[in-house]
Amino acid sequence: MKCRICGRRTTIKSRTYNLPLCEEHFIEFFEKRVKKAINSFHMFDKNSRILVAVSGGKDSLTAWEVLRNLGYEVDGLHVRLGIGDYTKLSYEKSFEFAKKRNLRLIVVDLKDYLGMDLPDLPKNLRRRICGICGMAKRYITNRVAIELSYDVLVTGHNLDDEVSVLLGNMLHWNMEYIHRQSPVLRKTHEKFVKKVKPLVFVGNDDVDMYARLKEIDFVEENCPFSKGATSKVYSEIFKILDEKQPGIKPIFLMGFYRVKDRFKDGDVKLNSCKICGYPTTDEICSFCKLKIKLNDDEKN
Amino acid sequence: MKCRICGRRTTIKSRTYNLPLCEEHFIEFFEKRVKKAINSFHMFDKNSRILVAVSGGKDSLTAWEVLRNLGYEVDGLHVRLGIGDYTKLSYEKSFEFAKKRNLRLIVVDLKDYLGMDLPDLPKNLRRRICGICGMAKRYITNRVAIELSYDVLVTGHNLDDEVSVLLGNMLHWNMEYIHRQSPVLRKTHEKFVKKVKPLVFVGNDDVDMYARLKEIDFVEENCPFSKGATSKVYSEIFKILDEKQPGIKPIFLMGFYRVKDRFKDGDVKLNSCKICGYPTTDEICSFCKLKIKLNDDEKN
Repeated sequence: MKCRICGRRTTIKSRTYNLPLCEEHFIEFFEKRVKKAINSFHMFDKNSRILVAVSGGKDSLTAWEVLRNLGYEVDGLHVRLGIGDYTKLSYEKSFEFAKKRNLRLIVVDLKDYLGMDLPDLPKNLRRRICGICGMAKRYITNRVAIELSYDVLVTGHNLDDEVSVLLGNMLHWNMEYIHRQSPVLRKTHEKFVKKVKPLVFVGNDDVDMYARLKEIDFVEENCPFSKGATSKVYSEIFKILDEKQPGIKPIFLMGFYRVKDRFKDGDVKLNSCKICGYPTTDEICSFCKLKIKLNDDEKN
Repeated sequence: MKCRICGRRTTIKSRTYNLPLCEEHFIEFFEKRVKKAINSFHMFDKNSRILVAVSGGKDSLTAWEVLRNLGYEVDGLHVRLGIGDYTKLSYEKSFEFAKKRNLRLIVVDLKDYLGMDLPDLPKNLRRRICGICGMAKRYITNRVAIELSYDVLVTGHNLDDEVSVLLGNMLHWNMEYIHRQSPVLRKTHEKFVKKVKPLVFVGNDDVDMYARLKEIDFVEENCPFSKGATSKVYSEIFKILDEKQPGIKPIFLMGFYRVKDRFKDGDVKLNSCKICGYPTTDEICSFCKLKIKLNDDEKN
């Protein structure tokens, strides 16, 4: 293979875009794709106070690294979930990453918000633990960002994450979720921080390559609770599709962004949770509802 | 397995709906699904003059059989494509089916309309032969239906065909095709016959089972030109999905029918082709354009 830019021999390529590139031009290409997402969707600028949610995994640490290399000042936020060795390792990788680069990392414990660690949740909640974990992380990261006056919260969702979720929602025609899927969630409530996904134009394989070229030391283990996640079947499907139709993932996602307004059913009204004051479509937010349920359980 | 209706032991089931049924109740269930599609979408009634396009394959002969068993009077139309033994066999199966049941079969030759058989088309047309064949069959079946004053033209497209096409169009956001995908195409031009797909609620495996239970003798060979058709990748994908999420195919298609108006961009204006008078979105229809091109090629 030869680099499509400079003609040098190379063994690597952007798999997402089926484009052979040398190391130097791969990095340039990757950063340009991220820059393009930031600018096209008006995510933030050099004056914004930016916080990135870091799990210690490939995607979030790469998001932090690439934003830094693009000249943005970004702090990190790590939520410790209390999942034994997995949490210990995740924290260490996040801590080491920040220390090496002299970046500010804010660390909070889920337990301080919820009253217990994830593995200690009672079994009778009728919700998968992954659903609870996702909800709790969204609540806590949003709350910390608001309390510390950040303008914008970055997450590491990449192109593969987005197409998998989108396909799942399209197959079931979950209209509300379809419309809400966006690279930018605007600030629609005083206690809701703007949320952005600068990696939406780069796929999993490309993020992995960038992380390796930049020698980012990330957690490679999967969360012990993640076995059998439904999103895996969609990844498998996009692998098959991408082999037959290289480039289908950006075609699908960018095409969706162009037509997504057709799925809109009017704006969702956000209320303030009667307990914590943070936004909710209900009277009490999901996080406070969970806490009430856990307290009730304890009393019985 | 036990029949979900009568509890008798059975070895068969509706794979589409993941429902074990004995032979008798499978047939009843299958016919009810077809009846439901006919009624929900107002396809036709007992007084309609109905024509079914039959290729000699499983789907079209099953469509004819089930409509007959539901008490509709239906004539058949077979277009001979001139593809050697494949056409010979397709014609024989269609002919035998009609003869055995004392049904009227109209037979026409593509050559009489196009001036040549499909395998004799020049190689420089820049279109896949399957695309040309589909366009020509749509033109000829519509024209025959109009000339012989039928109210409605039935095709054997089943649930698997529909979800495959829909997924392909969604992945590429082909908005025009997405909106046009419908179990019923209304009569929007005096020379455009209403077109309906009564098998949209029954999947490939169920059609296959019904055909076998009713001892329909159909062509099992694939057309020699069909190798590597793009639709195969989508069938493969739905096979994977259906294993993990049984029933996903009807969920996807019926959900789409509920929301499809969102994909509408205003009505497409149909003109009359300046050469043959049949409907086209252009000045000259695709079929006449092809004939002009073939004539020009002959002269050079």
